Amino acid sequence: MGQLTGIKVLDLTRVLSGPFCTQLLGDLGADVLKIESGDGDQVRGQGVIRDGLSWYFATYNRNKRSMRLNLRKPEAKEILADLVRRSDVVVENFRPGVLAEMGFGWERLVALKPDIVLCSISGFGQNGPYRDRPAFDFVAQAMSGFMSLNGRAEDPPMRSGLPISDLIAGLYGALGVCAALVRRRETGRPEHVDTALVDGLTSFTAYAGAEVLATGRQAPRLGNDHPVVAPYGLFETADGVIAIAPANDEIYRRLQRALELTHLDADPSFATAAARFANRGRINAEVEGRLRQRPRAHWIDVLNRAGVPCAEVKDLVQAFADPQTQAREMTIEVPHPGHGTVRMTGFPLKFREHPCRVARPAPDLGQHGEEVLRELGRDDAAIARLRAAGALD
Amino acid sequence: MGQLTGIKVLDLTRVLSGPFCTQLLGDLGADVLKIESGDGDQVRGQGVIRDGLSWYFATYNRNKRSMRLNLRKPEAKEILADLVRRSDVVVENFRPGVLAEMGFGWERLVALKPDIVLCSISGFGQNGPYRDRPAFDFVAQAMSGFMSLNGRAEDPPMRSGLPISDLIAGLYGALGVCAALVRRRETGRPEHVDTALVDGLTSFTAYAGAEVLATGRQAPRLGNDHPVVAPYGLFETADGVIAIAPANDEIYRRLQRALELTHLDADPSFATAAARFANRGRINAEVEGRLRQRPRAHWIDVLNRAGVPCAEVKDLVQAFADPQTQAREMTIEVPHPGHGTVRMTGFPLKFREHPCRVARPAPDLGQHGEEVLRELGRDDAAIARLRAAGALD
Repeated sequence: MGQLTGIKVLDLTRVLSGPFCTQLLGDLGADVLKIESGDGDQVRGQGVIRDGLSWYFATYNRNKRSMRLNLRKPEAKEILADLVRRSDVVVENFRPGVLAEMGFGWERLVALKPDIVLCSISGFGQNGPYRDRPAFDFVAQAMSGFMSLNGRAEDPPMRSGLPISDLIAGLYGALGVCAALVRRRETGRPEHVDTALVDGLTSFTAYAGAEVLATGRQAPRLGNDHPVVAPYGLFETADGVIAIAPANDEIYRRLQRALELTHLDADPSFATAAARFANRGRINAEVEGRLRQRPRAHWIDVLNRAGVPCAEVKDLVQAFADPQTQAREMTIEVPHPGHGTVRMTGFPLKFREHPCRVARPAPDLGQHGEEVLRELGRDDAAIARLRAAGALD
Repeated sequence: MGQLTGIKVLDLTRVLSGPFCTQLLGDLGADVLKIESGDGDQVRGQGVIRDGLSWYFATYNRNKRSMRLNLRKPEAKEILADLVRRSDVVVENFRPGVLAEMGFGWERLVALKPDIVLCSISGFGQNGPYRDRPAFDFVAQAMSGFMSLNGRAEDPPMRSGLPISDLIAGLYGALGVCAALVRRRETGRPEHVDTALVDGLTSFTAYAGAEVLATGRQAPRLGNDHPVVAPYGLFETADGVIAIAPANDEIYRRLQRALELTHLDADPSFATAAARFANRGRINAEVEGRLRQRPRAHWIDVLNRAGVPCAEVKDLVQAFADPQTQAREMTIEVPHPGHGTVRMTGFPLKFREHPCRVARPAPDLGQHGEEVLRELGRDDAAIARLRAAGALD
């Protein structure tokens, strides 16, 4: 049993923000039905394809069933209305207004299911001057100011290499749905959750956002450096780079002792955090000079035992193979009948009592259409009529 | 009324991942009590301080009350036990094991409150070989592989300029708590949610993670470029840079028409997506040559109307002033009695029926100690004894 066992989710999403939201709900135990049309979610054709299956699609669409409807047909819209009637949650990431144009605006959904939770994820939100603009992660990163904080001052603004605005918005969507489900038990009232790629990034601006709102000015980009702390950042050892983050004075003292840099004690240039930052070239050189004498693994061990946050800079190949990643089961293997076994990332939420699990692998396109129609009470003849009408693919 | 009105959260967190989790729960309507000791959460002293208040602290600690306890005193531990008894949720981001050392391990919490939801947020998780290592956002970005995907191939791995591993873990924590609250209504059973900075980033690796798991190899970093699409990225106009993301063939055609680059139709070098990518230097030059003829605002308007995702690269000053940001109320003003009015980022979750709101500004250190003790039934004499014992500061 999962946290959301018994909750039925009607999933009208594609690509990434919406599918990530419904994947999270499915991982938590919800029964997710993905509605697709035509060739289906375009991610089915993206990334590495093995035995006819995109591993990228498989990851973000586990724990879902798939039904293929041609929603231009009135018969398909009738099926969709029936599906809304038996659902707790509808998730969609169309452009604002498209769901209403399809005949499934807010009033209609509530008429069909009086306590429905609708979650809408879009680039810019359901209101405002940009609501109708086409959205994309790269655009959200640019427009939100997020890119302006990444990279070195002398380089251009740099996006995150991952589509984080999609993923953050999907995560917010799942949070909004679960919170609304808590409230629904009390009031029996419907709810519309509206979140956006740009809004999610805005909420992630942390100290940089607070500083800009307080002062009206933005500090230069810092690359891998810290705004007020030194030593800090990437350092060379005898055999590669490590990241060190001694974020306060106490941790700096631990670093100094662990590196046996006791000769610095007498030097007023390094006596305070402010002094070290003012002389950051020299203190960084002292630290790196010592680190270069021994290999990376040695320092990772010594510094962690001394209580100094530090790490190798790993690529994903190394990160996935790491003993900690394995102990946390953050990569898992999922059998996909007909497509072999897929390796994918695991569950970042660990529950003692009701853990997340993969109850079903990502579906083939339309795999569960007949099964779901039978759950809706349609018999062989009705299903045949739907096929003949071109409503069910 | 919010989604979580009536839910009581005991908040044992400090700095960022945990406080962001409890801020989200508070924004959703939960009654959050932050327990602090000594000088309190160190973020109280970080960032821009105005009228004695850190705006960074104010943002991530809105909708909380504060009580200052010296948990080395047995009298303070008695108070904490009483607080657990009346709480629905406990959130903590100590190093794994510290809460149990304080006398509040899992069994004790469940003995005090049989349906408690405990949420633990840590750098590496509650198990595994690195569980006891000191953690920090920069270290999580390095170790998870996230940094290895950011920046240009010729530059070093680049962290995100924001502490995203803290924020993602806080958001996962809030999701885990809300999902567990849905289930608790059914079973009345307790739950322990365990999430980690590194695990959250691992779940965000998207197509890059899928590719590495499928092939065992990681592609070079791409900076602002797309792995298989051109034109794509940052382009110069007559008066500044814009980001353009024509992610598929249909959108490329719209771009081509909008830029009146019809002379490219006849050139087989640009006829297909693969051909354009193979000739990306030339197609990028064609696009930029046209964009340089007119100012940025012109192209933003023309391209959006044509259905091509595009945007200015804004800094936070520009992003916060943007009409869309204002329409979405993504910056808000919150009066803080004694500290003036604080501007902060708003709510990325918009609810039609039960919206998020700031029910109370961030608390002064220990501001609500007496108020909460009276809720626990302590009278003047009992409170005086706690003060005399040094348990309540």
